[in-house]
Amino acid sequence: MLLLKTYQQYVKEVKRLARNKHPEETVNRILDVAYRLFMEKGYEYTSIQNIIDNLGGLSKGAIYHHFKSKEDILIAVTDRITAESNRNLEDIRDCTGLSGKEKLKTIFKTSIMRPVQNDIFTVAPDFHNNPKLLFNILHDTAKEVAPHYIRPIIEEGIADGSICTEYPKQLAELVIFVANIWMNPMIFDDTAEDAYCKFMVFRQMMQGFGLDIVDDEMMERLRELAAIYQKNR
Amino acid sequence: MLLLKTYQQYVKEVKRLARNKHPEETVNRILDVAYRLFMEKGYEYTSIQNIIDNLGGLSKGAIYHHFKSKEDILIAVTDRITAESNRNLEDIRDCTGLSGKEKLKTIFKTSIMRPVQNDIFTVAPDFHNNPKLLFNILHDTAKEVAPHYIRPIIEEGIADGSICTEYPKQLAELVIFVANIWMNPMIFDDTAEDAYCKFMVFRQMMQGFGLDIVDDEMMERLRELAAIYQKNR
Repeated sequence: MLLLKTYQQYVKEVKRLARNKHPEETVNRILDVAYRLFMEKGYEYTSIQNIIDNLGGLSKGAIYHHFKSKEDILIAVTDRITAESNRNLEDIRDCTGLSGKEKLKTIFKTSIMRPVQNDIFTVAPDFHNNPKLLFNILHDTAKEVAPHYIRPIIEEGIADGSICTEYPKQLAELVIFVANIWMNPMIFDDTAEDAYCKFMVFRQMMQGFGLDIVDDEMMERLRELAAIYQKNR
Repeated sequence: MLLLKTYQQYVKEVKRLARNKHPEETVNRILDVAYRLFMEKGYEYTSIQNIIDNLGGLSKGAIYHHFKSKEDILIAVTDRITAESNRNLEDIRDCTGLSGKEKLKTIFKTSIMRPVQNDIFTVAPDFHNNPKLLFNILHDTAKEVAPHYIRPIIEEGIADGSICTEYPKQLAELVIFVANIWMNPMIFDDTAEDAYCKFMVFRQMMQGFGLDIVDDEMMERLRELAAIYQKNR
């Protein structure tokens, strides 16, 4: 393969490899390639060898130096996506000048409006082929997002009087579980219309808890995302 | 092994094998034995070899002819339990003399009170090691139980005036999704106390939709099931 490359390509590659002195760059390159392949082929149908073939010269040993298994790579890929999203949640959780209820609304609105959502809905992983990814999302929702971001906001809302519940822990879990899993058109293969109706029911559910936090702009955005997913699946 | 068997055992086995001409009988025997072992030892501590050892003479090849892996056996075991549970749902859906709302309550109550739930919570598979099972439960909830059992009941409730919603399809999905997945202590590794609080939030959620269908007997039963699970995990 190397023999077929033009001189310019060769120079470009040498420069790229020279730049890549630091281990975290290698890790990021592995994760970039793995992410793209997992999404294109499905996690179950991507082998470590496929990842190596797309890394242009990186050895099997170099990969195993950083990751024990393919599953470790998957976990790192999803961790990287959630880390960025969690920084966002953190900013909202820790900001001042908003009530608990307003923060809850801001979290939903910001999350759904983010442009990266278009990418996620475009690559549209097939959860049937990626049951481990599904487990990871479920686990992250229950063990990370609910206790570290949503629950503190609900507790703030209880303290400032904007949210009323005796069960902040469970309400946090329910709300984020329904939003992240049930309303995820990729998991349930929803049409744009289905996604819109689900959001209407979600809005009603939140109102039942006294949380009037879903507005029309959010409704339209969810319909748009579901349409992107349906176009690309 | 065969040489060590007594002549009586040998005759017994030949007779048994002669009886077992039909593949579905073999499959049922495998599932009976697997189910019993999963109960006794727990899913994670049961190997395919354990199942073979308890099948008295069935070869490894015969098992792999029907099932690709231990997880596939678990899925078939749970499918068999689900099929029975669905027959139950069918009876309630099709009975006369109850309003839609009353049927919805009956479905939850009957389902949670069934003694087989004790068995399921005793097996307590670890979903981290069995992501396909998790996907199956999610899929069955969204594609089987919601459209075929819960939605018709909600539509009946709309017609008889006992349930009020513009989105019967999505409300059916939400209700059964929250009940089957979020409130499943095996998926989220909940303590008995957690499970109880979740059910309190579920009750409030249902009340928000005008559906006052959770009673104290159901609350106590869920606490009991979570305790069984925590004792056996």
